[in-house]
This record gives sequence, C-alpha cells and structure tokens, in this order.
Amino acid sequence: MVDIATRVWNHKWKIDPIVRSLIDTDFYKLLMCQSVFRNRRDTQVTFSLINRTKSIRLAELIDEGELREQLDHIRSLSLTRGESTWLRGNTFYGKRQMFRSDFMEWFEGLRLPPYHLEKRDGQYELTFEGQWPEVMLWEIPALAVLMELRSRAVLNDMGRFELQVLYARAMTKLWEKVEHLRGTPGLRIADFGTRRRHSFLWQDWCVQAMLEGLGDSFAGTSNCLIAKNRDLEAIGTNAHELPMVYAALAGDDEALARAPYDVLADWHDEHEGNLRIILPDTYGTQGFLDRAPDWLAGWTGIRIDSGDPATGAETAIRWWQERGENPKEKLVIFSDGLDAEKILELHARFSGRVRVSFGWGTRLTNDFTGLVAGDALAPFSLVCKAVAAEGRPTVKLSDNPEKAMGPAAEIARYKRVFGVGPQEAIPVTV
Amino acid sequence: MVDIATRVWNHKWKIDPIVRSLIDTDFYKLLMCQSVFRNRRDTQVTFSLINRTKSIRLAELIDEGELREQLDHIRSLSLTRGESTWLRGNTFYGKRQMFRSDFMEWFEGLRLPPYHLEKRDGQYELTFEGQWPEVMLWEIPALAVLMELRSRAVLNDMGRFELQVLYARAMTKLWEKVEHLRGTPGLRIADFGTRRRHSFLWQDWCVQAMLEGLGDSFAGTSNCLIAKNRDLEAIGTNAHELPMVYAALAGDDEALARAPYDVLADWHDEHEGNLRIILPDTYGTQGFLDRAPDWLAGWTGIRIDSGDPATGAETAIRWWQERGENPKEKLVIFSDGLDAEKILELHARFSGRVRVSFGWGTRLTNDFTGLVAGDALAPFSLVCKAVAAEGRPTVKLSDNPEKAMGPAAEIARYKRVFGVGPQEAIPVTV
Repeated sequence: MVDIATRVWNHKWKIDPIVRSLIDTDFYKLLMCQSVFRNRRDTQVTFSLINRTKSIRLAELIDEGELREQLDHIRSLSLTRGESTWLRGNTFYGKRQMFRSDFMEWFEGLRLPPYHLEKRDGQYELTFEGQWPEVMLWEIPALAVLMELRSRAVLNDMGRFELQVLYARAMTKLWEKVEHLRGTPGLRIADFGTRRRHSFLWQDWCVQAMLEGLGDSFAGTSNCLIAKNRDLEAIGTNAHELPMVYAALAGDDEALARAPYDVLADWHDEHEGNLRIILPDTYGTQGFLDRAPDWLAGWTGIRIDSGDPATGAETAIRWWQERGENPKEKLVIFSDGLDAEKILELHARFSGRVRVSFGWGTRLTNDFTGLVAGDALAPFSLVCKAVAAEGRPTVKLSDNPEKAMGPAAEIARYKRVFGVGPQEAIPVTV
Repeated sequence: MVDIATRVWNHKWKIDPIVRSLIDTDFYKLLMCQSVFRNRRDTQVTFSLINRTKSIRLAELIDEGELREQLDHIRSLSLTRGESTWLRGNTFYGKRQMFRSDFMEWFEGLRLPPYHLEKRDGQYELTFEGQWPEVMLWEIPALAVLMELRSRAVLNDMGRFELQVLYARAMTKLWEKVEHLRGTPGLRIADFGTRRRHSFLWQDWCVQAMLEGLGDSFAGTSNCLIAKNRDLEAIGTNAHELPMVYAALAGDDEALARAPYDVLADWHDEHEGNLRIILPDTYGTQGFLDRAPDWLAGWTGIRIDSGDPATGAETAIRWWQERGENPKEKLVIFSDGLDAEKILELHARFSGRVRVSFGWGTRLTNDFTGLVAGDALAPFSLVCKAVAAEGRPTVKLSDNPEKAMGPAAEIARYKRVFGVGPQEAIPVTV
C-alpha cells in the first residue's frame, strides 16, 4: 500500500534540516549559558570554526548554499513549549529547577544571532559575534551541521544498496565495541558525541545501542534532545570556553593568573555535588592544581580532556592526596580521544583508586573509519571555539601543544603566567 | 504520518505466509517435473523430510499448528497468470518455450497434493505420497517452510533492536564474503540457496548483494520467483531424484545398472547445451563414469555434489581426457558445502583447466553462525527426498557414505551392482 500523501509530502521537502531543535545541543552548553547569563551577560564574544584537519577541504566538499540553508534553518528555531517544560520540570543531577526562571524566560525568547560565512583556502570561515550567552549556543549546532553535511557529501554518490551495507557495517562495528565493553563491573560511560556525530539519526542509534547493550553502565547522553526523547539523564558540566573568556578579559597578568579560579568560584556559588567538576587543563593541569585554592580540592572530580589520560589521572590523584582528600571518593572523567579499548584500559588502571567515568565522543558517534573508499568518512578534528572576548584574543594551552590556540605572543605570555614548562605533543586526530 | 489503513491491515494477518508462490522453488524442479510429466507421469512416489542434524529437535522448536497453517497455505496456491506468462514467454539457457504447452496447462491447473504430518522423537515426520510430478513439487517449499519456521522460533524471543543488530551483522558477514569474491577474473557463481535459506526475504537480500557486488560473476539464481522479480537468469538442470526413482523402478540388477543412463537418455532427448549436465555421484562417480556410454562424454559438463570436490573434478577431467574430449571446453559445477574461501580455492585450482561454475547454497543464504546465543541459528542439514517409488525403497549412495540413504540391504545391493568400493566419510554439516 503506497501512502500517496507521504510520498507527495516527501517531494515537497526543500531541505532536510540537520538541527531541528535548540536543545539538540550539549547539556553543559545550557549550564554554562545560564552561568554566563548571570555573571557576564553583556560580554561581546566571537566564536569561530576551526578545522584542525586541513586535508579535509570542507569548502570543496560542502556546497555553500546548502550550508547557508542549514544555518538559516537553525536561526528560525526557538524553544518549543515541550522543550521548555522538560528543562523547567526535569531533575538534573538530582536537582529540581536547575534552570532559573529568569534564564528560562530569556531562553524561551531566544533566536540565534546572525553568522558570518566566507570561503578561504578550501575552508569555511564561519564566525559568530555578539553577546556571549547568545553566540555560545552556536557552537554545537554549527559543528553538527558541518559534520553532517560532510557525511552527506560523501554519501551522495552511493546507491541505495551501498548505503544499506554501509550502515549495516557501521552498526556491526559499534555493536562489537558495545559487546567488548558490556559486563565490565563498575563501568560508567556517557555519550559525548554530539559535536562530532556522523548525523543526528546515527547519534540517536548509537545512544540506543549503548542503552540496549550496556544497561547500568550507560550513564546518559550530553545531547538534551536525545535525553528528552529517550527519557535519559542529560550529562555534562563545564568547558574551556569559561576560563578562556574570563582570561581574555583579565586586565593584567595578576588578574590573568586568577581568572581560571574566578570561573570556578562563580560555578561554586551556583552548583554542588556532581556538577562540581574541575576541567584543569586549559592552561596546564599541573600548574593549575599546584596554585589552586584549597576549597577546589573539596570539589567532586576532575575531567581529563588533553594530554596522556593516565598521566592526567595520576596527577589528579597525587593532588588530592597532597590536599588531604581521599581519591577513592573523587571522580575522574576521561573525555579525550576515547575508544572501547582505551576505555577498558583506563578503567582497569583506575577503578578502585578513584571513581571513574567516561565521556565517549567521536569514536562512539562517528566511527566510519575504513567503511568507504578512500576512507572519506573517517572522523576529523573540527572545533568551534571562543576566539575573542571584548576584542581581545583568547588563548588555550591544554596539556597537548597540538591543541594550543591563540596568537603566538599571547601563548608565550600565558605560558609564562601559568608556569607551563615543556609539554609532550600528541597527534590530534579527532 | 501513520497510515492507519496499513496498521489495521497488519492487525488482521492470520499468518505471515513463508511460501507465497508455486514458483518460489528451484528451477531444476520445474525442468525435472516436465521430464517426469512426459516420461513417468503416473509413477507413485513418496517424498519424506529427513533431518540429518538430530540435535536440532524441530518438533520442539516449531509449533505443529503453525507448521500446518504454512503447509495448508501452500496447498492453496496456484500458478498466477503472471507466473505462467513468465515461464511460457521467457528464454531459459538461450532457449525459447522451454516449457511445453501440455506441461504448462497441467501446471496451471495444479494444486499441491495432501501432506502427512506426525511428530516422532522430537522430529517431524512429513511425507508426501502421490503422482511423481505432483509430490516432487513439495520438496523445496516444505524445506523452506521448516527452515524459516525454525528461524522464526529463535527470533521470537528477540527484541526489535536485537533484531536490527542481528541483520546488520548478517549483512556485514555476507558482504565481506562478496568483497572477498569480487574482482576474481572469470568467477561464475549462482545462488542455489532456496532450500536452506534463513528466510525468503533474506535469500532475496543475498541475491541482491551478489548482484550488486559481483557484477558479471553473478550467474543468476535457482529460485524462479526471485529470478522473475529481479529479472535474472533462472539456473539449474537436474538432481538425484531422477536416477533414484528410475533405479527403484528397475526390475532386476541389469535394469538397475542401466537406470542412471536411462535417465540421461531421456534428458538427452529433451535438452541440449548447458542443460546437459551430468550429476554422476548418485551411485558413485568413478563407477558411473567408467561404465558411461560414449554419447555422455559429449555432454557439456558435470556437477560435483558430494565427496571431496577437487577429487571429483580431477576424476571428471581424467574421464573426459580418456574419452577424447577437451576438458577446457567442459563445465564443472561445484555445488556441495561451499563458502567463499572454498570457492576461491577451487576456482584457482581448476579455472583454465576446465570451465568452472559454482552453485552456492546454505552458506550464502543461511550463514548466521555465531550471531545469536547458543548458535541457535547455525545452519543444519535438512533434506526432503524421494524415499519410495511404486512401493519400493529408493537408495542414494553418493561419494560420501555420510550422505547415503535407503535400507541397509538395498544399499549393499546397489554398492555391488554399481561396483562402489571404499569411500571416504566427510562430516555433513549443511
């Protein structure tokens, strides 16, 4: 039986929108947005797309008109009544009314601000300038659109049967990872793969696979829309953009040195328990911890997002011990460059010594490596970062010099201020 | 958009029929049926289901009521106008009007005769008694029904997501075989997997995979319905039931010794070219070829269906050479126990020495080995054979004593008459 109405409706599609909801974004973006809305609402910030994998020439793969259509579609979105109800009525990290009324009223009225798009050297220059709480919400949908348009560009030449085999193989590949992970006692993994996903539908399937295969070991997803649709925990705390913008706004070296702790002091006022997670690597983990005020040692955990993850975790454990804290009560969240094997290795090494959790990203929601000719669907390293605040450039050092960003002179200044010595370079692939 | 009419229609299903057409059967069955219709129409024959894998207790897995519903549904089928048109109008093996008018008129009026079903020792005793051209058409649909009901019994406990992963893995598995086979120059493979298929839809997908992946190396399918639907070549010639029944009807040892050649003399009158394929193993390949009349050496090829396939092919090549034929112009069809690796091995050894072709069965259309708990979908060895003709038992020896069938005294007599010496036993798994 052919449903003629559906067929006709399908013919009428102008575009197939990639991002269809303002909450198709990472939960921590909304938490940070609320914090920024309260503490630094009027700060002028610029976000910019950065493709760290130069060999992927996005402007040659993706049609500019299609990209504009997708971005314009995102600008047409506003929070639906159901989404607002979910954010207002839900319990996040055990807390009711996580989002305050003034923030929710502002969010309900929000449309994303304009974007600026140009082609240069085979890449897109895509920037967002404006008030921090507005432009920061562009990061995740912009990345998701670019990632999925790249997937579509590759898939466009494939026949229906080829597509069926491709997704069968991708499902098989992911399910083998899930089977590899399942049954490991005490394992806790969340989906952190929104920004690098192959596509929305694929991320949603990956979440379903974790849910079906991992049982209690699946902690939830960072994606609010998927969490809402599947009735899961929304997961996430804070990210580099907070210290990066706070640091850029610092008037002198002394204020700069204090900036990363100012961020967490604001956060301390707003959140407790499992939301008190330190992200220490923005300007070098070791220096950050050495200079940290004692109240930070009382926080629940540390997220390791660059450098060698085992080294980072050992550093954290030593720091807690030095500050008289019991590491067994602390949480270490690994969130950089994970795959099933690495997760099991880190879990085996650290479980029992600390509470361990994983935020699994690119290789969960975008591992099509080896599945098409020329490996044209292999994941790559695309980010969208706050690059300036009030006209001043931001800087990120991290624990891997390959992930450093900012003008060279500013990087040198930050290294001096934060006492960052020699760092081990680790190739960045995703 | 929910199509309410479709949903309601689906609710109304009494059964989901496994066999929905009288041409959902092997092409050689129709060729043989026409030959039998012409030469031995009134012979009373009994076909019987034989499960050679005793560990699979079919009567405990499959509900008797469901089995009867499926078999009753098959009895309700008759040739459709489109099916008749396809058989009458099509070119098979380069020949128009392969099926004569008298046969087609009979076939158009046919409904399959009654079946007899009982449970014994955890197995089903399923027999078909009647005129040979009628009961012989039960073989393939009966096997297809039992195979698919067994699949359904195992799949019945699985959730929707588990099923999705299962078929993704099965597709991946088959596609890896196709990729392994593709690009081998001169390779020719046909689907012979109807009788042992996991399900009709799965066989159809496997055929599509061969079609998409193998290009010219895919020779067609033995399944007439799939050949018709996908506009492919229908493939097949003749099988053991012809010499088995002819032999059972022989009045004395002399007539018995002549029976396998009488079969082929009848066939010689009816067919030429690529349909002149010898199946020499029914009562031992070596003896059959040694005693064969010279006109048989002029036939196009030999099908190797039991024993070690390389040995069988070497025997065939030697025989052609002894009879003054050029093996390079002859066709060897391998059709027993094949998988991708074995196909490539035999192709490498024999291509160039003879023309080589493959009839790939169970491990094409039913390789779910290792994909569910307890390997409950692993293929097994189910056959449906002519066991008696005019009240006399049939005998099959083949080139593997594990495949022999018939009463012990008759097996001994046949071995004596056909001069069959010691044979190498090869375990039968599919």
